[in-house]
Amino acid sequence: MSAKLQPAARVSNRRQDVWSIINEAAAASPKQPIVNMGQGFFGYNPPDFILNAAKGALDRVECNQYSPTKGRPRLKKAISDAYAPHWGRKLDPETEITITTGANEGMLSAFMAFIEPGDEVIVFEPFFDQYISNIEMPGGKIVYVPMHPPEEGGFKTLSAAEWTIDFAELERAITPRTKMLVLNTPHNPVGKVYSREELVKIADLCLKHQIIILSDEVYDRLFYVPFTRIATLSPEVEKITITVGSAGKNFYATGWRVGWLMGPPDLIQYVSAAHTRICYSSVSPLQEACAIGFEQAEAEGFWDTCITDMRSKMTLFNSIWDELGLPYSEPEGGYFVMANFSKVELPADYPFPAHVAERPRDFQLAWFLIQELGVAAIPPSEFYTDANAHIVEDYLRFAVCKPDEVLEDAKERLRGLKKYIKN
Amino acid sequence: MSAKLQPAARVSNRRQDVWSIINEAAAASPKQPIVNMGQGFFGYNPPDFILNAAKGALDRVECNQYSPTKGRPRLKKAISDAYAPHWGRKLDPETEITITTGANEGMLSAFMAFIEPGDEVIVFEPFFDQYISNIEMPGGKIVYVPMHPPEEGGFKTLSAAEWTIDFAELERAITPRTKMLVLNTPHNPVGKVYSREELVKIADLCLKHQIIILSDEVYDRLFYVPFTRIATLSPEVEKITITVGSAGKNFYATGWRVGWLMGPPDLIQYVSAAHTRICYSSVSPLQEACAIGFEQAEAEGFWDTCITDMRSKMTLFNSIWDELGLPYSEPEGGYFVMANFSKVELPADYPFPAHVAERPRDFQLAWFLIQELGVAAIPPSEFYTDANAHIVEDYLRFAVCKPDEVLEDAKERLRGLKKYIKN
Repeated sequence: MSAKLQPAARVSNRRQDVWSIINEAAAASPKQPIVNMGQGFFGYNPPDFILNAAKGALDRVECNQYSPTKGRPRLKKAISDAYAPHWGRKLDPETEITITTGANEGMLSAFMAFIEPGDEVIVFEPFFDQYISNIEMPGGKIVYVPMHPPEEGGFKTLSAAEWTIDFAELERAITPRTKMLVLNTPHNPVGKVYSREELVKIADLCLKHQIIILSDEVYDRLFYVPFTRIATLSPEVEKITITVGSAGKNFYATGWRVGWLMGPPDLIQYVSAAHTRICYSSVSPLQEACAIGFEQAEAEGFWDTCITDMRSKMTLFNSIWDELGLPYSEPEGGYFVMANFSKVELPADYPFPAHVAERPRDFQLAWFLIQELGVAAIPPSEFYTDANAHIVEDYLRFAVCKPDEVLEDAKERLRGLKKYIKN
Repeated sequence: MSAKLQPAARVSNRRQDVWSIINEAAAASPKQPIVNMGQGFFGYNPPDFILNAAKGALDRVECNQYSPTKGRPRLKKAISDAYAPHWGRKLDPETEITITTGANEGMLSAFMAFIEPGDEVIVFEPFFDQYISNIEMPGGKIVYVPMHPPEEGGFKTLSAAEWTIDFAELERAITPRTKMLVLNTPHNPVGKVYSREELVKIADLCLKHQIIILSDEVYDRLFYVPFTRIATLSPEVEKITITVGSAGKNFYATGWRVGWLMGPPDLIQYVSAAHTRICYSSVSPLQEACAIGFEQAEAEGFWDTCITDMRSKMTLFNSIWDELGLPYSEPEGGYFVMANFSKVELPADYPFPAHVAERPRDFQLAWFLIQELGVAAIPPSEFYTDANAHIVEDYLRFAVCKPDEVLEDAKERLRGLKKYIKN
C-alpha cells in the first residue's frame, strides 16, 4: 500500500482485543454450542411494554426521521421524571439532560467536549476498555489508579465492597493537568457499589482541584446494597459532575444505542455540541420507545423486577463457586461476577496458542474453560495496564444476564473443573 | 465557572448554525403552521415491508443486543448483493463493507481512521456542514474548492450539471499534505450528478497524488440522469476510494442511523477500527430491518418507485418557479432543489434581526419567506466559506421529500412572492 494511504496512529494499534480473542476461541472450541458468559449482553428480551412502544413508534412518521440533536423532548422529560426520586429534584430536560448514541458515544462526547491534547484523565483499574480509546481520541493522557482486591480474595468469598481505592495513591495521581476523573458505580467488572464515604472522599479531591467527574452509572437500576449517586452529594459536587445512563442496560437492550448524560447546563451544553459533531442525532424510534419505557416502568413494577430477577440469577449461578470451593467477589450491583481461580491448577503442558500463552494467567484460564468446558468468560487483566495486570490474573468475569437454563448449563459444565482444583 | 472546567476549543465555537436559526425562526413565525422544506427529512414513512421487518426484529432476542462492531453479517451480505449490479462484482461482506451509525458517523470514522493533525482534506463548496467538524475533530485542515454555478443562473433555468469544478483550481489546491478528497454525488444541495468525464478527471488527480477519495453517495437511489460511482471507474481508483451509503436516505428513515462504508480491505479495516472506538456498535434491530429491506427492495419494485416518486415531486413542486418566473437548477439527483431569487426585491426597510442582517442575502431571503409566507428553506451560503458565500447569496435550498399536499401548500404560499418579483 502506498505510504500516503497509511492509517492514523489512533487506529493502527494491532494488538488483538479481548473480545476478538474470546469470541474467536469460542467459535473454534470443540464444545459447541458454547455457553457464552463473556460479553454483557442480555439473553432475553426487553419487557413487552417497551417492545410494543418501539413497534408503535415505527408507525409514526416523525419517529422515523431525525430527532433533535440533543434528543427527543419526550425522552428528556421522561428521564427527568424518572430520576427525580433519586436526584431529589427534577432536572431541566432542556439544559441538564442530553441524549447520546448509547452511553459509549456519550462518554466519548464528554471527553471530546473537555479534553485538549495533553490534559489528564484519572481512570481506576479495572476499567471499561472503551474509556481508553475514547480519552485518547481527543489527545487525553490517562493516569491510572488501581482498585485493590481483598488480600484474602484467593481463598475467601467476600463482598465486592472489599475492592478498595488507596486515597493517598489517588491524590498523588492528581496534577495541574488533571481535567477529568472517571468513576464507575455500580462497577464493571468488580460489582462494587461505591459507598457514600468513598464517594465523599473522591468528590472532595475533585472539588479541591476542580476536576470534572464523569460518573458512569449505566448499571444504576441494578443495586443490591444502598446506591449513592455522586452528583447528589451536594450542589457543589453536582456542579462538576456529569452522570451517564444507558437504555441498553436499563431496558435489557444493549443493541438499541440510546444513552443519556445528565449534569449542570454549563457542562451539558458542550457535551451536546460534541455529540452533534460525532453522530449528529440518535436513533429516533428507539428513543421514543425508551421515553415510553421510562413513563411506564414504575407502574409496571419493572425497576423492582430488574433487581429481584438479577439478584436471583446471581444467587442461582454463584452457588457453583460454593460447590467447587472457589471464592468470588459477592456483587453489590450490576450483572457481572468475578470468580477467583487461584486454586485451579492448569495442566503444565497445556498447548496454549502463543497469543494466549504470552498474556497473564487469566487469559489462559479463559482459554482453558472455553476449550475444555465450553464456557466463555472474560479475563479481567485486559482492564488493567500491563504493570498492574498481575493484580487480577487469577480472576475471570462472568455475565449472569442470561436465562436461568443457560446459567444451569454453565454450572453443569463448570463442575468439570473439580479435578483441576487443589485444596 | 472555574477556568479548569472550560470546554475544549473544538466545541467552543458559538456561532449559531443554520439549522437552529431556521428552526427558531420557523417556530416564531406568525404564519403557523409553517411548511418546512428546510431540513431534508421525509414527510412520509418507510414502506411497509421495511417497517414490518423492523417490528419482526424487535421480537428476536439477538436483534435487541449488541451487533458485531463491524455490523450484522446479514446486512453486510444484503448490501453486497444489492450493490453487485452497480459495482460489477460482489463486494466481500467481511472485508469490503463496514456498518456505521448513520453515514455521518461513518464519514467521521473515515476521517478518524486516516487524518493526522495537519493533514489536508479537499472539500468542494457547497459542502454538507457536518464534514467540517468531522474533519477538524482529528486535526485535519480543510482546503476548499468552490463549485461554480452557471453564469446565467440568475435568469435562466438550467440543469444542475452546469455547476462546475475548475480543474486547474482543484489541482492547485493539492499539496504534499493532501490526504483525502471528499466527493458528493448526487450532490446536496446542488442536485448535480457528476458526469463520468468529471469523475475521471478527479480520480486521475487523486491517483497521481495518492489521495484517498471519500465519496458520499447517500442519495445513490435517487438519480434522474445516468449515475456513475467513482469507485467503479477502474480497479486502481477502487483501491483509493471509500464509498458512503445511508439507510436513512435509501429507505425514507433519516432517524434510523444506519449507514455503511464500502472500499478496499486495506482502507475499510481502519474505518471499522475507528467506528469501534467512537460508537462501539450500531443499532441492532434497525440493521436487521435494513438487511431485509435490501433483500426485498428489488422484488418490491422499491428502487424504481423511489426514482419515479421523487421525480414526480420535483416536477410538481418546481412548476411554481416557472409560474413565478424564477429560475432554478434542474436537479439530476437527490431531493433538493436550488431556486434563484435574484429577481426578488426585499423591502428596503424590512426589520431583519441582527443575526440575520449580518449574514449574506440568502439568510435574509430565508427569514423573509418564513415570516411573510410561512415557508422554510435553507440559505446555502452556510455551506460555503465566508470568502465564497457571495456565490450563492441569491439561492435557497428546498427539500421536496414531502407529501404532495405539503408541496401544493408550499406552492400556494410561494405565490405570495409575486408582488416582490421585478422583471
